[in-house]
Amino acid sequence: MFRARQIARYGAVQRPFLSRSLATSSSSSTTSKGPTGVVLLNMGGPSKTTEVYDFLLRLFQDGDLIPLGRFQDKIAKFIAWRRTPMIAHHYAEIGGGSPIRKWSEYQAAEMCKHLDQIAPESAPHLPYVAFRYANPLTEETLAKMMSDGVKRAVAFTQYPQYSCSTTGSSLNELWKVSERMDPDRTISWSVIDRWPTHPGLVSSFADLIREQLKTYDESVRDDVMLLFSAHSLPMTVVNRGDPYPAEVAATVYAVMTELKFKNPYRLVWQSQVGPQPWLGAQTQDTVNNLVKKGETNMILIPIAFTSDHIETLHELDLEIIGEAGVEGITRAPSLNGHPQFIKALADIVKDHLSKGVTASKQYEMLCPMCDKEVCKGSRKFFLE
Amino acid sequence: MFRARQIARYGAVQRPFLSRSLATSSSSSTTSKGPTGVVLLNMGGPSKTTEVYDFLLRLFQDGDLIPLGRFQDKIAKFIAWRRTPMIAHHYAEIGGGSPIRKWSEYQAAEMCKHLDQIAPESAPHLPYVAFRYANPLTEETLAKMMSDGVKRAVAFTQYPQYSCSTTGSSLNELWKVSERMDPDRTISWSVIDRWPTHPGLVSSFADLIREQLKTYDESVRDDVMLLFSAHSLPMTVVNRGDPYPAEVAATVYAVMTELKFKNPYRLVWQSQVGPQPWLGAQTQDTVNNLVKKGETNMILIPIAFTSDHIETLHELDLEIIGEAGVEGITRAPSLNGHPQFIKALADIVKDHLSKGVTASKQYEMLCPMCDKEVCKGSRKFFLE
Repeated sequence: MFRARQIARYGAVQRPFLSRSLATSSSSSTTSKGPTGVVLLNMGGPSKTTEVYDFLLRLFQDGDLIPLGRFQDKIAKFIAWRRTPMIAHHYAEIGGGSPIRKWSEYQAAEMCKHLDQIAPESAPHLPYVAFRYANPLTEETLAKMMSDGVKRAVAFTQYPQYSCSTTGSSLNELWKVSERMDPDRTISWSVIDRWPTHPGLVSSFADLIREQLKTYDESVRDDVMLLFSAHSLPMTVVNRGDPYPAEVAATVYAVMTELKFKNPYRLVWQSQVGPQPWLGAQTQDTVNNLVKKGETNMILIPIAFTSDHIETLHELDLEIIGEAGVEGITRAPSLNGHPQFIKALADIVKDHLSKGVTASKQYEMLCPMCDKEVCKGSRKFFLE
Repeated sequence: MFRARQIARYGAVQRPFLSRSLATSSSSSTTSKGPTGVVLLNMGGPSKTTEVYDFLLRLFQDGDLIPLGRFQDKIAKFIAWRRTPMIAHHYAEIGGGSPIRKWSEYQAAEMCKHLDQIAPESAPHLPYVAFRYANPLTEETLAKMMSDGVKRAVAFTQYPQYSCSTTGSSLNELWKVSERMDPDRTISWSVIDRWPTHPGLVSSFADLIREQLKTYDESVRDDVMLLFSAHSLPMTVVNRGDPYPAEVAATVYAVMTELKFKNPYRLVWQSQVGPQPWLGAQTQDTVNNLVKKGETNMILIPIAFTSDHIETLHELDLEIIGEAGVEGITRAPSLNGHPQFIKALADIVKDHLSKGVTASKQYEMLCPMCDKEVCKGSRKFFLE
């Protein structure tokens, strides 16, 4: 029924499904033995400043992230060229590149070691990383998986909260590249498309916040304001029904529940660019206004990314916290290599594999005010 | 420390606190015996169409809800006069008035009966209702409480998720009226200012949704889209850091967790008025677009109100569902007199009384981009 409904909903898509053997279809593959490929999906970042132009170009070429119409490619080249010097300078200021590849590869490898122990039925687990805008890109990763002989794989988004601009774009890309490089569907995919309140994620965040709170004197500790900061979205994306703002809020509430609501807090939104309206309250405005009101103790918590990148190391640390110049304004560390978090990643994959589902029920539903063909295509691919 | 910090944060407010006896201060009163007054706070609605003008006038006079500057009173009179015929017509179409008073008084009375059983230490519990824009107004309720000899009372918001426009406005009003009518603070107050994920609330919502899902054929039941609809906020309010959108999202996620994410869903926002930008996705647009895409089965769930009122009975039932004219679009019943919900209300009050707190830690924190004197005053009153 579900498959029939999918086809009814998204229309018949002409794809070479007939050549796909039943033995590797998603429903039966969930009971198959390993090897199991686990691919961490993320946006990525330039590892060196010389990679900044290519990174920005791919980013502005992504119509799922920034729709620029039929001149997308040309406009992307211009914007990437214009912004490269400033962004390269920012990367230079945080050590010459983004640590996101280092952390992603570490997380993937350690997660798979755990998985081999806790889920022997799907072992061995082979770790991969696929970035949307930086190396390793999806093509490189898929080629490696095919040469490794992977037949069963899990696309595991590293954005805990789903947005069409992030996880949606990564899955659309994985679908398109798979169509081209693996037309016979030798790899059978399933998707972990969101995990905003997974207990392991929540307890890892709570743990890092508790540790950070310990750096404050006990007499003020319970009054330190917790500012959970997530990348903002343009209101056009929010208003078409993107599920991200509500899922980020769910993470925040779950973390505060674990912290027993001992501190005042707010969910705030960072990284707005350009003249169009974005979702607020803005992180920068919030910090500035609280400082103006005499608040001196607050912790910024990056709540929508799993590792350090330019939005934490530069925007939060250097621009917002650095420019405020108040000793009591600090940041909770990112999840990075936190052992509890790595264990959570393994638990999420194990749960997913044992349930034998292709994706969440929520992934099935397109944004009500959106009708992108690419989103229908990727759903047809992953949900069938 | 906490009190000292409050005073430092909100500044010294000239109030006749000195006459307040220590025996009735909030910290000691939580251990005192009954009677305990429990006041359900809500916006209210006109019980008869003849009350519509007064209701609208109070609503537009409320600068916490709709700030209209120094000519607020005059503009309010004009808008109320202009809108009365249409709104009166809407109330006529739903039976001649709002059922919110009937339900609130029922909920308060039944909740207190439960409380007398489960919390004998604070019994008897006396039920009250105080509306912001309709009878019984705060003045009437406070007069009754004083004549009943209530010395200890709980202000219990019936907006599960906190917004400055709703709970904030009700508490500001309660503070101002208390200052005038009870300058010696013969009544010692504490506040239940939010309860977005209370297990009893969540399971009541989940129960009503499950029942509504049973009205759909089993073959389509798991594909029915759940549209959680909450009253929207202007983006100016969202962007100044109002906690409401994130708390509504927390409720939705908790309910979906209880429902095991079996259905696709979205959080959508209703009741936008005027030309300024409001938070979306809009409920009406969402339903219309889903219908256009061929979706025929969806359930609208009012997630931010506890009883029926014009936004459910008219806007959802007659305008959005009625005008869509698709049989499979229905609404989950409101909580109203649901026994599980009434029990939840009693549990929330019992928990609150046993913890002996004056309000949540989150209530302490003003919106970062807001600096209203009235909000400081009410916090000083309730948190001291």
